[in-house]
Amino acid sequence: MAIKLNCDLGESFGAWTMGFDDEVMPHIDQANIACGFHGGDPLVMQKTLALAKQQQVSVGAHPSYPDLVGFGRRAMVCSTEEIIALIHYQVAALDGMARAQGLSIDYVKPHGALYNDMMAKPAVFTAILMALSQYPQQLTLMLQATPELAAFKTQANTFGISVYAEAFADRCYDDEGKLLARSQAGAVLNKAAMLAQVKQLVEQGTITTVSGKVLALNVDSLCVHGDNLAGVQAISEIKALLS
Amino acid sequence: MAIKLNCDLGESFGAWTMGFDDEVMPHIDQANIACGFHGGDPLVMQKTLALAKQQQVSVGAHPSYPDLVGFGRRAMVCSTEEIIALIHYQVAALDGMARAQGLSIDYVKPHGALYNDMMAKPAVFTAILMALSQYPQQLTLMLQATPELAAFKTQANTFGISVYAEAFADRCYDDEGKLLARSQAGAVLNKAAMLAQVKQLVEQGTITTVSGKVLALNVDSLCVHGDNLAGVQAISEIKALLS
Amino acid sequence: MAIKLNCDLGESFGAWTMGFDDEVMPHIDQANIACGFHGGDPLVMQKTLALAKQQQVSVGAHPSYPDLVGFGRRAMVCSTEEIIALIHYQVAALDGMARAQGLSIDYVKPHGALYNDMMAKPAVFTAILMALSQYPQQLTLMLQATPELAAFKTQANTFGISVYAEAFADRCYDDEGKLLARSQAGAVLNKAAMLAQVKQLVEQGTITTVSGKVLALNVDSLCVHGDNLAGVQAISEIKALLS
Amino acid sequence: MAIKLNCDLGESFGAWTMGFDDEVMPHIDQANIACGFHGGDPLVMQKTLALAKQQQVSVGAHPSYPDLVGFGRRAMVCSTEEIIALIHYQVAALDGMARAQGLSIDYVKPHGALYNDMMAKPAVFTAILMALSQYPQQLTLMLQATPELAAFKTQANTFGISVYAEAFADRCYDDEGKLLARSQAGAVLNKAAMLAQVKQLVEQGTITTVSGKVLALNVDSLCVHGDNLAGVQAISEIKALLS
Repeated sequence: MAIKLNCDLGESFGAWTMGFDDEVMPHIDQANIACGFHGGDPLVMQKTLALAKQQQVSVGAHPSYPDLVGFGRRAMVCSTEEIIALIHYQVAALDGMARAQGLSIDYVKPHGALYNDMMAKPAVFTAILMALSQYPQQLTLMLQATPELAAFKTQANTFGISVYAEAFADRCYDDEGKLLARSQAGAVLNKAAMLAQVKQLVEQGTITTVSGKVLALNVDSLCVHGDNLAGVQAISEIKALLS
Repeated sequence: MAIKLNCDLGESFGAWTMGFDDEVMPHIDQANIACGFHGGDPLVMQKTLALAKQQQVSVGAHPSYPDLVGFGRRAMVCSTEEIIALIHYQVAALDGMARAQGLSIDYVKPHGALYNDMMAKPAVFTAILMALSQYPQQLTLMLQATPELAAFKTQANTFGISVYAEAFADRCYDDEGKLLARSQAGAVLNKAAMLAQVKQLVEQGTITTVSGKVLALNVDSLCVHGDNLAGVQAISEIKALLS
Repeated sequence: MAIKLNCDLGESFGAWTMGFDDEVMPHIDQANIACGFHGGDPLVMQKTLALAKQQQVSVGAHPSYPDLVGFGRRAMVCSTEEIIALIHYQVAALDGMARAQGLSIDYVKPHGALYNDMMAKPAVFTAILMALSQYPQQLTLMLQATPELAAFKTQANTFGISVYAEAFADRCYDDEGKLLARSQAGAVLNKAAMLAQVKQLVEQGTITTVSGKVLALNVDSLCVHGDNLAGVQAISEIKALLS
Repeated sequence: MAIKLNCDLGESFGAWTMGFDDEVMPHIDQANIACGFHGGDPLVMQKTLALAKQQQVSVGAHPSYPDLVGFGRRAMVCSTEEIIALIHYQVAALDGMARAQGLSIDYVKPHGALYNDMMAKPAVFTAILMALSQYPQQLTLMLQATPELAAFKTQANTFGISVYAEAFADRCYDDEGKLLARSQAGAVLNKAAMLAQVKQLVEQGTITTVSGKVLALNVDSLCVHGDNLAGVQAISEIKALLS
């Protein structure tokens, strides 16, 4: 199955614009749409859904911790029941707005700190699985492709949840298959290195880590970025490598 | 058809408690549940839905202008598209959370200033009808029973929307069939007057206005209040008059 | 006394950037800094104050109705005591943060719908004057230069408040000296018309309205816009006309 | 010097009431007033300040992480510069509103998770000290009396900040002088045990821990609770023990 392209979209808020959604949408397969807790507002969500519909892009909910000023990037210590409720609320809001346009959401990709906590803290991962398993519609969970993917998949399956594993086109990996922290040199790849990483992933199913180690990664989708013009321009080149 | 009892519930927020939801729910037929914009948060919504399910009470969404600190009571000048989007967002959030519990929402009752604007400003009423007509599920609109009810119903029907007309048990009406402003003496009825007003409405389909005029009101539901203990205690007495 | 240039700044919020503050600040005399209710957050306010200090620009507080998603542009019906409290809160927050950098705020310019309501609704104007008269530091109120300026000044003076009257460089005026609504053709002047309007104001103290009528306007400051590159580039040309 | 009584007040928000501020204020010495990020809004702050003025109670700012729905009780990972900015904003807002009433704030007591992080994470404590040392007015920092108080005081002094050390009247301490987690049995003392703990603290300067160990605690102030009627009624009895 071909690797898909996913991108975070709909992250404008009120009078503030973020991202080049119009330019990005035609080139991707999966749109992770913000649900109002870190970005997105009802009008922005409506417009982003309309754009996804027009470009026939699959829609995923992109829920976050409730932290607008921090853009959902700051870890918050939430209880299991808080996580379940805040995911249900955000997913449901997007779900109903999607159905109002004749669309159906396909998956959920947690945002920012909630995504990082999902990958690092078993209790958060479990809470997210509980939320999805209780949701009235079957939704796939998008998470990070790592060497531990099988264990994540197994646990998700016990909740009846299937997963999409995603890799990051423009980020350098460490030897454990985790992303190099942005604070470290070389964490974000330049365009040539990014395209080489994508090519290797597509052709060999591996990435080369910061130290030169080759790691196998099982990848369903590649995350690309549309919040800067260089990133947007690279998306069509990445797309060409995938088809 | 018997007149039903409706009440605004689920208006607590985070650490702040409002209303005696546990005490009220067993006595009412329709719960207007806040959706997070004037009160209610994801956890509160979840718990209020569970309580409605347990007591087999019909569920309505209670959307508001986005004004948490003003409790949705301050008129805001919103565009048609803003009103549609904010209603879709809030209704969808409650709708999905209800379906996660095996419930289905039945109707929408706008809250506070949005309710008042719906009754007073044709553009707001139209925006609300557009929102409901575009929503993927058929939902009834709850609005105020006034002498102009037929005109409201006619317009709603052109959008394919049916209505519930509600009267207010404890509020004195003026000669136009509107509520006497709370700032005026006698605007809120004492318990005896409230029970007399309910009795007259049930038996004769009329209310007596502040000046003594008798007005016919077509009423599907009576709004009662659960935010103070006296109001809660009166609910069962009102209920007795309706059955 | 020379006419000054003022500009709304510090309207970024969290991860969202708005305006070219770095480019604008060197060319203006007065920075209207958002205080968190329509834009601005504590970090943005701190950085904007530092920039004003560096460029020796006078600082004004730019308070708003509490409406982040609407950017303070939607009229809200607030009571006198609510307006006083929300102005005190916002002005005080900026005031203390300014003093932490050795700065002192000089004036208050209400934002968006609060500004429009100040000019159109006497009760709002009075509430704002009450807020300023109760504030522990003497602050000037910036309001719109109109043919009724004298009446506004007189009322402000009864509260012990002095005013800065501002005109809008790039907006067309109607025959009553009000801004033509943005929805009307010609409401926003092109660059040549804008520079001509500024030149006329500086040399003759008048503007020419949409119908060709010549109106005298007493102006202390000119409002310019830094939220688009064209606006930013025009600022230095306007500045040249003023000196 | 006599031990003082402090209490968290002004934590109502909009239509939601919290705490018995009117009943508590006459009995305490120091009011920790919420600044809008976990509770309190401009009107509530104004009224709470007026009440403190009337009862001649010393005023402290009670800033929080920005988490209204979580009441500031959820740890958030904030950078040093974010902590400094959010403290400046909140303290400044209360400071200016206090000066508008002829009051002056005396100290800062961080709220909830920010308080806990201050005691547990050196980077957070340092950020708070930096915030206070940069603030234009000298403010004392209220923190928890523990066996490590001397080290906290020493570090505060290097920033030119003095401290108030507070103990908790109604909480059981563990052998390290920390509060027993609320989840543990016996974490909250009953009234008799609370009064005994206060008496011992006043007469001997010690508390007896959960295991029976006696610990010396240097205490300037006792924190009491006004959010429930039993707590309020106990305050005057505690007050009697202190004088």
